[in-house]
Order: sequence, then C-alpha cells, then structure tokens
Amino acid sequence: MRASAYKVSMRSPEDVSEAALLLDQQTFRAEDVIAILGKTEGNGGVNDYTRGLATLCFQLLLARRAGLPVEQVARRIPIIWSGGTEGLMSPHATIFVREPDRGAPPGEKRFAVGAAYTRDLLPEEFGTRVHAEVAADGVRAAITDAGIEAAADLHFVQIKTGALTTERIAAARVRGRDVVTTDTGKSMAYGRAAAAVGIGLATGEIALARAADVILKDLAVASDVASTSSGVELMNCEVIVLGNARGSTSELVMAHTVMRDALDAPAVREALRRAGLRVECELDQRDRPRLVNVFVKCEPDLSGATRGRRHVMFEDSDVGYTRHIRAAVNAVVAAVTGDPMCYVSAGAEHQGPPGGGVVAVLARV
Amino acid sequence: MRASAYKVSMRSPEDVSEAALLLDQQTFRAEDVIAILGKTEGNGGVNDYTRGLATLCFQLLLARRAGLPVEQVARRIPIIWSGGTEGLMSPHATIFVREPDRGAPPGEKRFAVGAAYTRDLLPEEFGTRVHAEVAADGVRAAITDAGIEAAADLHFVQIKTGALTTERIAAARVRGRDVVTTDTGKSMAYGRAAAAVGIGLATGEIALARAADVILKDLAVASDVASTSSGVELMNCEVIVLGNARGSTSELVMAHTVMRDALDAPAVREALRRAGLRVECELDQRDRPRLVNVFVKCEPDLSGATRGRRHVMFEDSDVGYTRHIRAAVNAVVAAVTGDPMCYVSAGAEHQGPPGGGVVAVLARV
Amino acid sequence: MRASAYKVSMRSPEDVSEAALLLDQQTFRAEDVIAILGKTEGNGGVNDYTRGLATLCFQLLLARRAGLPVEQVARRIPIIWSGGTEGLMSPHATIFVREPDRGAPPGEKRFAVGAAYTRDLLPEEFGTRVHAEVAADGVRAAITDAGIEAAADLHFVQIKTGALTTERIAAARVRGRDVVTTDTGKSMAYGRAAAAVGIGLATGEIALARAADVILKDLAVASDVASTSSGVELMNCEVIVLGNARGSTSELVMAHTVMRDALDAPAVREALRRAGLRVECELDQRDRPRLVNVFVKCEPDLSGATRGRRHVMFEDSDVGYTRHIRAAVNAVVAAVTGDPMCYVSAGAEHQGPPGGGVVAVLARV
Amino acid sequence: MRASAYKVSMRSPEDVSEAALLLDQQTFRAEDVIAILGKTEGNGGVNDYTRGLATLCFQLLLARRAGLPVEQVARRIPIIWSGGTEGLMSPHATIFVREPDRGAPPGEKRFAVGAAYTRDLLPEEFGTRVHAEVAADGVRAAITDAGIEAAADLHFVQIKTGALTTERIAAARVRGRDVVTTDTGKSMAYGRAAAAVGIGLATGEIALARAADVILKDLAVASDVASTSSGVELMNCEVIVLGNARGSTSELVMAHTVMRDALDAPAVREALRRAGLRVECELDQRDRPRLVNVFVKCEPDLSGATRGRRHVMFEDSDVGYTRHIRAAVNAVVAAVTGDPMCYVSAGAEHQGPPGGGVVAVLARV
Repeated sequence: MRASAYKVSMRSPEDVSEAALLLDQQTFRAEDVIAILGKTEGNGGVNDYTRGLATLCFQLLLARRAGLPVEQVARRIPIIWSGGTEGLMSPHATIFVREPDRGAPPGEKRFAVGAAYTRDLLPEEFGTRVHAEVAADGVRAAITDAGIEAAADLHFVQIKTGALTTERIAAARVRGRDVVTTDTGKSMAYGRAAAAVGIGLATGEIALARAADVILKDLAVASDVASTSSGVELMNCEVIVLGNARGSTSELVMAHTVMRDALDAPAVREALRRAGLRVECELDQRDRPRLVNVFVKCEPDLSGATRGRRHVMFEDSDVGYTRHIRAAVNAVVAAVTGDPMCYVSAGAEHQGPPGGGVVAVLARV
Repeated sequence: MRASAYKVSMRSPEDVSEAALLLDQQTFRAEDVIAILGKTEGNGGVNDYTRGLATLCFQLLLARRAGLPVEQVARRIPIIWSGGTEGLMSPHATIFVREPDRGAPPGEKRFAVGAAYTRDLLPEEFGTRVHAEVAADGVRAAITDAGIEAAADLHFVQIKTGALTTERIAAARVRGRDVVTTDTGKSMAYGRAAAAVGIGLATGEIALARAADVILKDLAVASDVASTSSGVELMNCEVIVLGNARGSTSELVMAHTVMRDALDAPAVREALRRAGLRVECELDQRDRPRLVNVFVKCEPDLSGATRGRRHVMFEDSDVGYTRHIRAAVNAVVAAVTGDPMCYVSAGAEHQGPPGGGVVAVLARV
Repeated sequence: MRASAYKVSMRSPEDVSEAALLLDQQTFRAEDVIAILGKTEGNGGVNDYTRGLATLCFQLLLARRAGLPVEQVARRIPIIWSGGTEGLMSPHATIFVREPDRGAPPGEKRFAVGAAYTRDLLPEEFGTRVHAEVAADGVRAAITDAGIEAAADLHFVQIKTGALTTERIAAARVRGRDVVTTDTGKSMAYGRAAAAVGIGLATGEIALARAADVILKDLAVASDVASTSSGVELMNCEVIVLGNARGSTSELVMAHTVMRDALDAPAVREALRRAGLRVECELDQRDRPRLVNVFVKCEPDLSGATRGRRHVMFEDSDVGYTRHIRAAVNAVVAAVTGDPMCYVSAGAEHQGPPGGGVVAVLARV
Repeated sequence: MRASAYKVSMRSPEDVSEAALLLDQQTFRAEDVIAILGKTEGNGGVNDYTRGLATLCFQLLLARRAGLPVEQVARRIPIIWSGGTEGLMSPHATIFVREPDRGAPPGEKRFAVGAAYTRDLLPEEFGTRVHAEVAADGVRAAITDAGIEAAADLHFVQIKTGALTTERIAAARVRGRDVVTTDTGKSMAYGRAAAAVGIGLATGEIALARAADVILKDLAVASDVASTSSGVELMNCEVIVLGNARGSTSELVMAHTVMRDALDAPAVREALRRAGLRVECELDQRDRPRLVNVFVKCEPDLSGATRGRRHVMFEDSDVGYTRHIRAAVNAVVAAVTGDPMCYVSAGAEHQGPPGGGVVAVLARV
C-alpha cells in the first residue's frame, strides 16, 4: 500500500477548489481518498459551523468525482476539522490517499494511514468510561486498517468526537439519565478527554482499570500521540491513525515528539529532525519543500502561568482559551518551519503532558 | 543621570503590589519615577478600560508614596498602557526611573529615558497632519529631556494618543467640523498612524512635506523606532523616549532592529545580540537574568497572507485583528527569550515595515 | 397566482428537516418555491459562514425534491439569510411559494411575491452609485415578477448583496482600481447602503440624481420598505419583493409601517393592525395563529443615545453593534407578538428613518 | 429616617461627574450615601474590570467630599455593579442616601434602604452552603439596618459576591482543599446561586435544611426578591436591601413582582402599577418623571427555548449567554417604561422562577 498526503489551502470553509484542481490534474483519484484532516476558520467552539460546511463541500466534491452518492462518502471517509485558525494559522486540509503499491517496500518503515468509525454515543455515555472504550475500539480498527504493527510506529492518532447540546441534554433528561455536564462548552472538553483516554487504552499508554477515574480528573495520565477534538456535528468517534509501517511503499515518513509547554520550540525542531529534515534554529531552506505538514495539540498551562508568568487565558470571558493558545502555538511552530499553514488544535486533555501536547511531522523522504 | 527600569508583574489591572514592594524596599523612590509603560489585560479596543484603571492605581500609589496630590502625578508622569495580553502574554509594567549619578559616565553610551506631554487634540484635528506635528513637538521635547544627542541613539519612541468616540464626533459636528472617520475602532488606527508619522518627523525619517499625504495612505513611509497606541482615555500625546546617551551612568543599555514580518525570529535574536546578550536559537540561559524587557510593535500582513499563506485576521468579526496578531508575535518573541512577559503592541501603521515593526531590547550591561 | 409562505424552525444552519417534512406532506412542491428568507445563528459579520451552509443545505433539499441539478436551483431561487439571532431570536426560514390559482381573485389585494438576480458587481463598483443602479434594476424585475402594480403595494423589499474581502480588495488594486473602503466589516455597511438606495430608486422614494451623493453620507434619504443585508458569499444582488397585488389569490396579506426607533412598540402594534390582526398591548391570543412572520430592519441610534440615554453599541470592540441591536429589537417585537421567531436584521442604512426601520407583517386573512 | 435615591448617568466607568454635580448642588451629602447600585459597560464576565474602576472612582469622590480616607469609604458603603450594558441599556448608578427625617412618617409605608458586609469566603467555601449561610447573615443585618419589619416589605435584595480565579483555585489546592468548580466562568454562577439561596434563607422563602442540596441543583427553589451578581473583585458578600418601612419619611415607594419569562411585559406593567404609576401599554407620559428606576434579574430559559422557540444563547461560544439575555430583557422593560437606563442583571439562579426573575420599581409617591 502506498499512502500519500496533499495539503491544500482553503480560501473559505466551502473552498475546495485546490483539491478539485488536484483531481483535475489526476494527482490522485477521489476513490483513493481515505481521510481528510484540516483547520477551518470558525471559533472552534460549540457554534462553529465552518466544520460542517467544509465537510459537506468536500463530501460533495468527492461524491461527484467518484460517482458515488454523498451518503456513501459520508459513511466511508472521515473528514475531520479542528475549528479555529487564530493568529497566523492558515485554513487548509490535508488529504490522505491510499493507492496500490508501485513497487516493493523500501526496507525501511514508511508512512501509513488508516481510518475507522465508531457507533454513536448516547448523551449519558458522553464523556464517560464507555465513551473511552468505544473510542479505543475505533482506534484499534484504524490501526489494523493502516497496517501498522507496533504502538511505537504510531505518531499521531486523531479522533473527532461530539459534544453535548442543550437539546441532547434535554433528551437524556427526558429518559431520566444524567449527563457529565450541562455546560455545552465544557462538554467539548469531556469529549476530547474521553477520546484521548480511549487512544491511550488502544496504544497501551493507559490501563483500562484507570479509564473511569481519570477523565478530566488526573490529567497526568495521557497518551503522547493523541489528538482529539469535538464538535456538535457528530456523536460518534471518527478516527484517523498516522504512523509508519514496514509494508508501506509511501514516499513519506512520519515522526513525533511532545512539546513540554507552549514555548517548546526545541521540541518542534526535534520532531522535524526525527522526520529526517535539516534544522538549525529554523527549518533549512533546502528542506522546506520536503515538509508536508506539522500536526500539534496544545493547551494553556493549567496553573495559570507559563514558565512562571501569569497568562490570562482562563479569565477571558470574551475570547475562549482555546483561541488564545492556538494563536500562540501556531506562531511558535511557524517561526521554526517558516510555514503558518500547519495543524494546531487546542484542548489537549490527556493528550501529552499537561500544558503541552504532541508535535508530529509528515515529510517527504 | 542614571536611568533604570523595573519590570513588575500585575495580577490584575489594579494590582500595584509588586511596585509597592519595590518602593517599600527602597529599590527606587516614587519621586524618581519618570514614566511607566505596560500591558494590561483588556481587549485593546475602544472600550478597554483596563488601561484607565491601571493608570489610576499607579497614580494613587505614586502620589501616596511621594506625598503629592494625584493630579500632580497625572500631569508629570506619563503612564502608558497597551491593552491586550492575548495568548501567553503576561500583564506587566516597566517602571522607568531617573536618579542622580553615582559616578562618572563609563565612556560608552548607556540607557537614557525622557518623557513629554502635548496639548489635547480637537476631534477634527485627530488623525491629521496637525496631529502628527503636535506629536513631533512632543517627541523633540522628550528627546531633550532624555539627554539623547543623535537620532541614531533612539531605540524606541512610544506615544500614547487618543481615539474618537461617538461623543467626540458629535461634538465636532455641532461645531460644523468633520472628523477623519466616524468609525470609533478605525479612529484608533488614525491616532496610531498620525502619532507614528510625528515620530518620523522628529527623527528625520519622514519629511514634513509628506506628513499630510501619507497618514494611513502610504504605509511604506515609516519610522523604524516608532511605537504608538491609542485609547479613549486621553486626547493628547504622551511621549516616552528610550535610547542611549553618552552622559548616562545607567547600568542598562538599549538596542533595536525591525521584524520584517510576524515570524521574524531572527530579528528578535539580532536585537538581543545588539544589546550584548548571547543567543543561539534561544537566549542563552546565563544571560536571561540580564534581559529587562523586549518592546515590539506588530500588525497582520496587510496583503491578507503571511509568507504566502492566507490569514483570517481581517475577516474575523468576533475577534479584532490586533488581538490575533499580538498573541502570535508575543509567542515568537517568547520562544526566543523564554519569557512571555514582554511588551507586544499591535497596530503598527507607519511603524517599521508594513507587516512588521520595531523590536527593541533593554538589558543589563 | 397564489402566493403562500411557510415559516420553518431550524435547529442548526444545516437543519432543513422541517421543510423536508412539509415537502413529504405535500404541503407545497419544491418546484413552486420562489424564494427563501431567513435568520441563521452566525455572527452576522464578515466571517459568518452559517449563511452559506444554510443556503447549500436548502439548495440540496430543493434540488433533490425537484429532481434538478443544484446549480439550476442556485440560479433560480434566491435564498437569503440575515446572520445573527441574538437574544431570544430563533433561527428559522420563511419559504415563499407560488402556485397556480385555485379560483378567482377575491376582489381585495392579496399577498404577492417576486424575485430577481442581478449581475455580479466588481469590487471597485461595490458600494457606489453603480451598485445602487444595478440593485434598482433588480428590484424592478422582481416587482414585475410579482405582478405588483403600484409602489404603494410594496411592503418589504429584501436585497442580499456582497461584501469586500481582503482578496477582492487586492484584486481591484492589482487592476489599479480603488474600493470604497478597505475595512471588510465597513464594506458590509456600504453594500447594505447601496442596495437600499437602489430600492429607493426603484420605488421612487429616492431620485436618481441623488444616488451618487447620499450613500452612507445622507442617511435621512431612505426607502421605508427597504431591507438589505450583505455577506461575503456573493457579489451580486439577490432580490425578494413582498407586497400585495390585485390579481393574487393568496390567503395571506401584507402590511407595514416604520419603527421610529428601537423601542417603537406602537409601530409594531400598528403594523399588526394594518395586516388585520387584533392587538391590545399584545397580539390577541385568538389571532396569534394568523401571524406568519414579522420582518424588521433596525440599527442603533447614530447619535449614540436612544431617547436621550447613552448606548454603548458603537464603543464595544468585543461585540459588533449589529449583534447588540438585533437582540434588543427582536425582544421589543416578540414582547408584542409573543413569538421570538421573527426576522430582525440590523444595519438599516437608508432603510427607514435613522435609528429605525421597516416593520412588515405577513398574516393570514 | 428619610431614604432617597438618585439615578446618575455615566459616560464611562470612571465618569462620576453627574454625581459630583449633585454633591456640588447640595442635593445630598457624601456622608449620607449608604450604598450605590449600578450598571457598567464591561462584559459582565470574569475579566470585567469596569466594575472595579467605577467602584474606585466613586470611592475617591465620596472620600474627597466627605473628608474621609478612601479605605474608610470602602469599608462602609457597598458599591455594587452589575457588568454588561448590552443592547440599549445605558450605564448608570443609583445612589442611595439616608438623611434625618424632616417630619413625621406619613402613615403609609415608604421606601427604606439598608446595607451590610459579610466576612470573606475561602475559595473552598465558595458556592457552598457555608456561602449561603454567610450571605443570609448579611441580609439579616441589612434588613435591620434598613428598619424593615416584615419580609413582605422587602422588594429587592441585592448581593454582590465574588468569583473563583485561577489563583484562588490554586491557593485552595495548595491547602489540599477542593473547590466547587475549576471553571472560572462557571464559578460566577455558583456565587450568584449561593448568595440567592442565602437571601431565601433570610426571607424565609427557603428552608435551612435545603440550603446544601439545592445550590445549582434544584433551580425551582428560589427567592422572588433576590438579585445577586458576582465578580472577581471581592470574596465576601456586600448586601443592599430595598423595601418599604412604616417608620420611613421617604418620598419614594418600592414595589415588585416577578417576570415569568424574558418576554413578560405584563409583569413590568404590574410592577409599575403596584408602585402607584399609571400604565396602559406603556408607562403614562405624565408619570414618567415619577419613575426612579426599575431593577430586574433575568436569565435565558434553561430548556433552550423561550415560549417554544429555540434560542441560541447556550450554544454561542463567542458571546456569553448573560450578554444576550440582558440585551433582550432591557429592551422589553424599556419598551414599557420608555427608558433604557434601567438595571437589568443576568444570571438569575434561585432568583425568581427559572427563566424569569424579580422586577422591582422605585418611584416617587
């Protein structure tokens, strides 16, 4: 199997023109698209409908080009958006494609990608251990789909899950069931947390016995390859797994490390180097064309201070903290790579060390 | 004259406790404070009252400690705040102090600081050539006050000026006079622009003949040491000039360069080096205690793209573009210095190259 | 011709389920839909993509049900959204339908609806006299389409027009052309203003000789039946005309008056009465089922005060003034009708008296 | 005792000029001010510093005019602000004054006002039963201070209490103590709820046995005269009690009822009538000078719908729900009274019926 990836810019959430052009040019076929992961320019919050709009537009494009009904595309290809392109961050999608091999595997591990869907969660299951276990099953299915053999070859596991809305909360109550929170904004954190714990269950980083106790409680329990986001537009888990596999004939390779905090530029450099790119203070000009994308999770330091300096992110009633931190971390990454069009998603509960998160690099060999 | 500077953190806009402690410890005397420049945690917009609150609290502190009426402090000591501490930026004040010499000048130029006030502008003068000329007179007075001899020794010239409000616009109309804009948010840009052109007039970077034509029209005309901000709480110009002077016996030294765009981390490194600090990719750990503060102006790239990648800052009707860019540039600076408590102010019209701005460093020798 | 209208609630911008149900029940046919006018829950600003999402979803629904390609629906049926459902306002669409007559006209004028499209404006034409004239041509076409014979029978003329974006401004500049404003938010006001002046040209309320001079300059020049909104998703004018016509066999009737300011509840009562509904302080309980919808334009009092009391809407850098005023005026209307699901759109430049706007009522006879 | 009240407009949070003018004119004496209750133009959220600024400016004014140290004024006169003047709401303060009698009581009950302070709450007590009991003690003290004899004579009981901040939460944790929530925004709701339950304890509307169980749990348990708000600037309860008393020689009188939901204009009319004012659909023009102020608490309908129509207030990640609902309810009240300068505060947990709240009227006899 030959996995590849194409980063396309978007002039608005409905702009699929760059992807359409690649299809026109037969760079890849619509039938071979396995997943899409991107950033849209909404607020990243409960009422961020840019995600749904971008999903629908990409589904319509792929359906038309593959000659399939939209519904079938929607059931087969996870299209996951993290909302919020604050600061310099540039809206874009990374389109993952799997094609037949064009030769034998090169002997070294190369890029592999897999995807899976889970069942819908009930509002009362949302954010609980059940949610984590459902997510874990999805991750295992996606690992199998990717042909990845060992947990050490996983470099970035993305789950998009749902969120509670006023209507869903009311629906649970009508049935006499309770929900983990009645705050719709807070429910997004529960969704991210449960899915991340699910990733840790699947990778072996988190023990099943702990799953019930830790969700949003013990944030030191984490998966270092997890990236989860949540949005009202769904209630299941959509999973995309990125890593390397022995059988892959891809011309790409994946690597990762974790940022210890929001200012951890050395970790960004290290991840680039692990992917085989030359870096001094910045990514070497000669290797910039080799970089496909950087995928990062982040969050404000929970203590209210970064390196001992107070931040105001948790006190701001006008602008949500996820908006603040995305702007900052995108800038730290882009100052190293020279490219503000990278994937930085906020809300890193159980995803890497508290105050930090995974930084994964996809590069041409 | 011996100029010094103290950076104090603030837990809220009214928190002057760290400054009070320094006064308690006789680190400096209230009578010797010449100016204060800081960042408060408001939105940085028209209705950002954190600036006024912080000003009042510092005035009350200094008045009490110096045994002076508050009104006298308010007339003598410019206290300038740039609102908006997005992302990791940490609210703080830099207190500038001038004391009698404790010895002879060291032979090399050292840090010097001066201040001045101008008259109030009329609403109809606001944002025009008259505004620029009034600002220029203020800058010249502050340069003289600082004892700085040459334009080359200026490294950061800060002006705080006013903004139009619905009431001020109405007042001008009652008198049959027009204003440059009826958009109160936009008037902040006019104020910053006119003040920056005024700085350029005073430094010789901008010719008087051009002053009328360029304001918010030809943004390539700029001063590379200018930093201006605006707020409804005043209608004059308050000026603080930072540089080096032969006669200074300060233990500090000032340097600057310009960031070409928001990602110009090499410029941050260069400014640190010019101030005598050791830097590899990041500020050397050994020299971190020597850094007093970094002062930066920034703005989104006016083309709508940074390094060819679209940004959304001008399209966001929820969060103003100054909030976005401050979060990003503060992170770029802090990733180099390790300290997110630095002064980053947005709205760099006529202040450095379009899309960039001055980066000035104040350090211990 | 028999015009009718159906108000459907929306649980999100992509929720067309209530409309789908009406189609399932054969309440009306997709082929007979002539226009849709609604409120979506975005910010109503430049980056409000809820409008585009709702449009796409309704287009897909109608295309599927009518067996037409989406492109053809998009060219034939104006679907206009005003973004922003602040306060109690409830997201919804009013679907306008035209069917063959089922009998002779009743002798009194009844509800009629017409629609039209104009050509795309160039960025440099946007907000100018050209824009107004293009809009006027569109309104005349829609009046003809509706079969409305006299200007006195017009009760609500809706135009959706475009807005400038950073890209469009840049495109004009590349061609060496200027635009009316480089502030994307401000361009929305220019779009609304030019379209409203165009309506006034078509109704005879505004003389052609004045069109060039008044746009955003003399706001006393206005059309009392105009309602215009703007959004980045288009660059032409889409026109919907609502009124009464002698030839109509509709079971509905239309009426309007103008609110003099945001608190003008008596005007709301008067408009309801003109449409034949019984009102004391509130709409009589018995007549509530007869109300189809209320359509209102509003804006903050430009003086900065309502009835002599200062408002803060123009000073708020966190929340745009259109968001503030929509919440207030929707509440005033809903307190009279008992129904917060009504159409209240802000930005009433040249639409009714300054600080006020049209209030139109569509009711069952 | 002769209680009076003066409503003064504010051009900004630091504007005390109208109050200063009344002092200049000897309308009342600074020494006789017993409490101030007002609306400032912040966001009403965690980082709303307009409240602190207005408090400081009024304290400085009163201290100067009474010849007292600021600290003494701060300990003696509760100055309570509800942040957020959305929509048409006009920033203002109501200054409550108590002077010696100028004659015998008139035989009918007249306006009386009292005030009290409680001790500071610990972060771990915040939002708990302890908080409610501390608040109740404060209310009882204020009732005694006012000379009000029966619970039936209470018409509006205002408590301002604190909120948790990231620092306070951390402080509790350092001591090994837990807090009711780590979400600073949510803590404002807990503060309002605990204080409201405290009011209910003091009035007898809520039984002590229930206090621990109901806070933010059973919202049907409520006090119909409670109005509470919270802000980071304090950690105790400041109490102002408004009602009528037999011994009062005031020329004012107080009355109240409850709004059942946000559109309950009939309740506004009823409260005005109970205070002796003539009302048809709107307050009679002749009685408008007799109205001093209207005091209202409100909240979005918790079901997510008002009168069966979905609202979006709980889904909006850009604008907090308290901002939405204040704009709406202020408009409903102002449409009846003709005056948008009234006190409307949001967050009505345990304050009147769910989705509604108290509406109290202070009027000249």
